[in-house]
Amino acid sequence: MITIRDVARQAGVSVATVSRVLNNSSAVTSETRDAVLQAVESLGYRPNANAQALATQVSDTIGVVVMDVSDPFFGALVKAVDTVAQRVQKHVLISNSWHQEEKERHAIEVLIRQRCNALVVHAKTLSDAELTQFMDQVPGMILINRVIAGYAHRCVCLDNVTGAQVATRMLLQQGHQRIGYLSSCHPIEDVTQRRDGWLQALAEQGIRPPEAWIAHAEPDMQGGEAAMVELLGRNLHLTAVFSYNDGMAAGALTALKDNGIQVPQHFSVIGFDDIPISRYTDPQLTTVRYPIVSMAKLATELALRGAAGELDPHASHCFMPTLVRRHSVAQRQIVESVTNSGDGAM
Amino acid sequence: MITIRDVARQAGVSVATVSRVLNNSSAVTSETRDAVLQAVESLGYRPNANAQALATQVSDTIGVVVMDVSDPFFGALVKAVDTVAQRVQKHVLISNSWHQEEKERHAIEVLIRQRCNALVVHAKTLSDAELTQFMDQVPGMILINRVIAGYAHRCVCLDNVTGAQVATRMLLQQGHQRIGYLSSCHPIEDVTQRRDGWLQALAEQGIRPPEAWIAHAEPDMQGGEAAMVELLGRNLHLTAVFSYNDGMAAGALTALKDNGIQVPQHFSVIGFDDIPISRYTDPQLTTVRYPIVSMAKLATELALRGAAGELDPHASHCFMPTLVRRHSVAQRQIVESVTNSGDGAM
Repeated sequence: MITIRDVARQAGVSVATVSRVLNNSSAVTSETRDAVLQAVESLGYRPNANAQALATQVSDTIGVVVMDVSDPFFGALVKAVDTVAQRVQKHVLISNSWHQEEKERHAIEVLIRQRCNALVVHAKTLSDAELTQFMDQVPGMILINRVIAGYAHRCVCLDNVTGAQVATRMLLQQGHQRIGYLSSCHPIEDVTQRRDGWLQALAEQGIRPPEAWIAHAEPDMQGGEAAMVELLGRNLHLTAVFSYNDGMAAGALTALKDNGIQVPQHFSVIGFDDIPISRYTDPQLTTVRYPIVSMAKLATELALRGAAGELDPHASHCFMPTLVRRHSVAQRQIVESVTNSGDGAM
Repeated sequence: MITIRDVARQAGVSVATVSRVLNNSSAVTSETRDAVLQAVESLGYRPNANAQALATQVSDTIGVVVMDVSDPFFGALVKAVDTVAQRVQKHVLISNSWHQEEKERHAIEVLIRQRCNALVVHAKTLSDAELTQFMDQVPGMILINRVIAGYAHRCVCLDNVTGAQVATRMLLQQGHQRIGYLSSCHPIEDVTQRRDGWLQALAEQGIRPPEAWIAHAEPDMQGGEAAMVELLGRNLHLTAVFSYNDGMAAGALTALKDNGIQVPQHFSVIGFDDIPISRYTDPQLTTVRYPIVSMAKLATELALRGAAGELDPHASHCFMPTLVRRHSVAQRQIVESVTNSGDGAM
């Protein structure tokens, strides 16, 4: 590998002079500068990013921590961060946390050690205390999808409870009463918050669902298929489900089809997130929009502002979910006239 | 930020001594070591990864360049790299290239400047000459989905032409003759290779398709929907399409459904890649399996071996695609008896 010493030797100057040229210091003559740049060119020397970062204590990299980049939701988040990063000529260093405490901690530490001065972090397993320690150390670290008291101006979040209420109330308005919940099995607060919203909306109508109306699985298509099959097997006379996310809802549609249950005529399904796949399921999925692209872009801009010491300490950044009406929800009344069954399809 | 100087001051030793302790040099007494580690602990000092990388000229990061991490195909690739990385306690630094020459070059340069000594690169726009320059510089750089003569032992690839032939021959065997091609509009060799495979399989049956049988769009669900609508509008009496990838095929299914054309009874669709979504479309997608997970894992292992100077210069790593039979392809004979139309559905 070509080093700065090779460049210095070729240009006939000291290593310190090469360094001054590469760092755009004014204390060199234009002849010296030309000689150095010519040597850099002819040798194919690449300045070491680690050395440059060490000198300035920052890197040109924006760090991002997500659960799993191959999950479409997190893919959209990372893409949005990258869009902002490209605009300011920065690069994105991504680390997966897999919703595991040790890996989440490690992912953040690696990015800090790389001297990323702007960080967008989706962290669900670390304690508030540990996260605030990191945030005190790195002014450009912003949390996405989590709020910590006293750090609201550095948190970009969504009201998950309201989102689940909106989804469940829509099913209730369509006459459904026995509404199951396809839950993620990950022990994170989003799962609890969406269950709480479902419970609260049902409670408004005097409905107290038993635990059996909830099935837990991985938050992807395969998990949703398994959870739906589990609920069908319990023979609960449900007529609708609220799904933790669109991936699980897509899997549920496949399970219902395999069992000869027509959606939405005989059974209604509502998702959460509005990832692109929800427009390509059959029927197209009614869902709750999680504005992850807008949120991730804002988080990245805040991270850059935080790194520059320009954050407004009085701001807060809580987004509201909205309903997206497509074709996987229908009135329960129609179900009864079609199936002639008082309890609906299940 | 706490620096090595603060640690030295607290421990009452020189900066050089702190450095020796942190780099596990033997030239320090155990008392000194304890004092330094205690100071590190009490101050919360984090060794700078850039400084460590500079000292050793390597980082603990595996670099990966893909077109767009939010594309499910590349999400799967990155996840597979991460799986291997975790096993050897390395981290993944990812950079998107967007299939643009300037960004592809920049992505590789950034990772090299970060002193990643293992790189898995999906590069489609840079010339062979430029890529081999990079590869000569970084022995742990491996290409995925591209072969360069003389560097075959550092390339992991798939036979795209054979994959497209397999897909098209399956449609031909089912009696289809007028078979369109939903093409990606990205100017990369995969697109040309898959078109060549489609052309060759048709030529074996004496069929020379006009250009009008090809529609170009972005290689995702939305693009596939648009391309299928375009082909339908041209009124070509096609009875089947071979799709560049599964995302486009999923979009085509939606376009066909919206136009009242039943798949596979009235029209057959075959995809490419076998990403998870292909099991959740309606009907489930018949496709060609691209073993991207196995390929990405092998590429990562080769990159680590290359970094350690342990590559076999005589090996080659070309994978073969295989057919995955699901439910989006049916015999053309059935179509005719159902629709009573000599030319099929279109």
